[in-house]
Amino acid sequence: MGQLWIKNGLFVTMEEDKPAFRGHMVIADDRITYIGETAPNPAPEGAEQLDGSKLAFMPGLVNTHGHAAMSLLRGYSDDQNLQVWLEQKMWPMEAKYVDADTKAGSLLAIAEMLKSGTTAFVDMYDRMDQVAEAVKQAGIRGLLTRGVIGLCPPEVQEAKLAEAIRFAKDWNGEADGRIRTMISPHAPYTCPPDYIERFVQAAHDLDLPLHTHMSETLAEVEQNVKEYGARPVEHLDKLGFFSRPSLVAHAVHLNDEEIALLADRGVAVSHNPVSNLKLASGVARVPELLRAGVTVSLGTDSAASNNNLDLFKEVKFAALLHKGVTGDPTVVPAAEALRMGTVYGAKSIWQDDSIGVLRAGMKADFIAVDIDQPHYYPLTDIVSHLVYSGSGRDVAHVWVDGRQVVKNGECVYLDEERIRYDAQASFERLLRA
Amino acid sequence: MGQLWIKNGLFVTMEEDKPAFRGHMVIADDRITYIGETAPNPAPEGAEQLDGSKLAFMPGLVNTHGHAAMSLLRGYSDDQNLQVWLEQKMWPMEAKYVDADTKAGSLLAIAEMLKSGTTAFVDMYDRMDQVAEAVKQAGIRGLLTRGVIGLCPPEVQEAKLAEAIRFAKDWNGEADGRIRTMISPHAPYTCPPDYIERFVQAAHDLDLPLHTHMSETLAEVEQNVKEYGARPVEHLDKLGFFSRPSLVAHAVHLNDEEIALLADRGVAVSHNPVSNLKLASGVARVPELLRAGVTVSLGTDSAASNNNLDLFKEVKFAALLHKGVTGDPTVVPAAEALRMGTVYGAKSIWQDDSIGVLRAGMKADFIAVDIDQPHYYPLTDIVSHLVYSGSGRDVAHVWVDGRQVVKNGECVYLDEERIRYDAQASFERLLRA
Repeated sequence: MGQLWIKNGLFVTMEEDKPAFRGHMVIADDRITYIGETAPNPAPEGAEQLDGSKLAFMPGLVNTHGHAAMSLLRGYSDDQNLQVWLEQKMWPMEAKYVDADTKAGSLLAIAEMLKSGTTAFVDMYDRMDQVAEAVKQAGIRGLLTRGVIGLCPPEVQEAKLAEAIRFAKDWNGEADGRIRTMISPHAPYTCPPDYIERFVQAAHDLDLPLHTHMSETLAEVEQNVKEYGARPVEHLDKLGFFSRPSLVAHAVHLNDEEIALLADRGVAVSHNPVSNLKLASGVARVPELLRAGVTVSLGTDSAASNNNLDLFKEVKFAALLHKGVTGDPTVVPAAEALRMGTVYGAKSIWQDDSIGVLRAGMKADFIAVDIDQPHYYPLTDIVSHLVYSGSGRDVAHVWVDGRQVVKNGECVYLDEERIRYDAQASFERLLRA
Repeated sequence: MGQLWIKNGLFVTMEEDKPAFRGHMVIADDRITYIGETAPNPAPEGAEQLDGSKLAFMPGLVNTHGHAAMSLLRGYSDDQNLQVWLEQKMWPMEAKYVDADTKAGSLLAIAEMLKSGTTAFVDMYDRMDQVAEAVKQAGIRGLLTRGVIGLCPPEVQEAKLAEAIRFAKDWNGEADGRIRTMISPHAPYTCPPDYIERFVQAAHDLDLPLHTHMSETLAEVEQNVKEYGARPVEHLDKLGFFSRPSLVAHAVHLNDEEIALLADRGVAVSHNPVSNLKLASGVARVPELLRAGVTVSLGTDSAASNNNLDLFKEVKFAALLHKGVTGDPTVVPAAEALRMGTVYGAKSIWQDDSIGVLRAGMKADFIAVDIDQPHYYPLTDIVSHLVYSGSGRDVAHVWVDGRQVVKNGECVYLDEERIRYDAQASFERLLRA
């Protein structure tokens, strides 16, 4: 892929205690080979040059929880009680999905994520081969997993688990290593304990991480206590879940002991502030989680409960919401919120050795933000501006694995007009079917 | 100005119970003369034609509380306690402002507001002639008022009140009627009671509305009770404030009696969700205010506590925040949040007879949103998409008073490059001064 030399850019590296600086960055093939205030010496010969003077460069955002294909259901049901939303709206439509719908929805979601600066995402759904194909085509990075609901007869449970394992084996390391896989029982309230244990065993056998929904609503926590005599964190811990590298989504309703246990077990939490607000699930105890040393990253959840996939928005909500709710304007400062979207995201998916920070030797997953706009002026604190004032709509260019996947706001490897058309056609077919 | 015929657009009129429709709209001079599903008959001869097929049209947003010139302090102080933010950061910088700074900050803010779809805004600050000049130039609509802090010797109080009256007289009705004025004591905690009464008298004399900050923090409510033996709503009511048309900003800390009194007196509330979160002031009781029949609109407050002026963001926060905080996902549904940003905004500034709804006979203050993007697909519920998925960055064109003031995302009557340059220069001068 050759070399790229970015000159005179404003770099937000996300390195600990390193302020933003104006300087240079060089990419060779899939890696950052140089970043610094002075020009690379010797100058990289034959490198393509990019004038960075009106752009801010930062690591690509990492979306650590979602269901891409549900983008087809964006705006199909809002402002409803959770049970109405889920049982009367989502499930009946999802039951009608065929492979082409999952592909159409996934491509729509990936196009939106890439254009708004997300370079890696976690996806838990079914028909995951379709999602993986979409990832391969688009050039994004994906941590993919077949999420399994276990409220079904034993033979169906068996088949679903087998499919989850087959998918995880088939796709781990594919697309030049951009795809990795996990094992995912959907949630403690949708999978019996012995069934969850089989997922834990599969994760051990395949040496893969685990992902699940946990403690999203107060009702499911209460149900867990009633059925199993333990709150979800203790319950999952007893089932051996946290003996594997684990990422749990939501974690809204936690007590102090649960926070301590998550910290002790090294469990990563995907905080989904917008989805939790929209479905009225509540507000996660993010300041306490961070204080306890838990790795907290950010997820959009699906476009059916968000309703967009712009992770800049989650960063903004994470920075603002907890101040207002706790009454303390110093919690989750701008830099911490941006870390949640980048370096903590990379850590949550066990890839902080290669992405999440702009540093020589790291993978070249990064974005360029157009800061030549009034809402970035005056140019005081660029981290503050990206968090409090910026938006995914400001992203001009995106690179993943050293390859430019968004150029001047358009996806390089996707036919966006076709994607919009297919998404509309799929939705209308689902409505009629 | 002639005529404009928009063909085949998706219209979100904000008329009560009227769903979005595809159709036509005709503008003649400063007014909407036709809007409907079928083409105008007879066709407007010689009208400029605009293909609306990839755009959604809606009333321009109304920002009902802010301090435009403080955009120069964007990102200058974040994540601080209110007193540090105000006393150590804001006030010392504001004390160094000269006319040129107020002008530069106002132009920066107005450019940002116009580009993100705001067509009318309330501004309370000092050096208001500069703000008014900026409004005149940019083509936006402004309800402007000199906000007065009364913690000063009597002769200074006298001069400030005189200046507030002089400004209100000089500018009311200027810029083809786009500028109107109000009278504004800054807040009950910064103005002694007898001084507030003089503003009320002035508002009566000039037949103008009143605007003030009220009950933004719990501390100021408690201080009011301690000093004056009444909470702010009762206090202002006793001073005659609500005998005039009144708009109060924030209103975060209200009890049931106060909500009932605001409803009874017809007081409009400017809800500033992002500023209230960022400064950790709390979460206003918006569902209760709406239920009581209070007109609740949306304000950004200044870019120093927000940190941008994109009112689409306030609409989104209004729709999401109160669901999560109350635990009820049905409160502040999408359409209600969008009304808060448009028709309730117009009502809050006493201009709902002319703006806030797309209807024949109304002023042509409207915006066109580029919906040919993945986050607007599938095209299910356009109101949901505008609220939950959209952003001010999606605004392509803006008209105020029938005149196009933003075209393809750029301000028609402003030199944006110059504005960015001047804002940066002003900020750096303030830092050094």
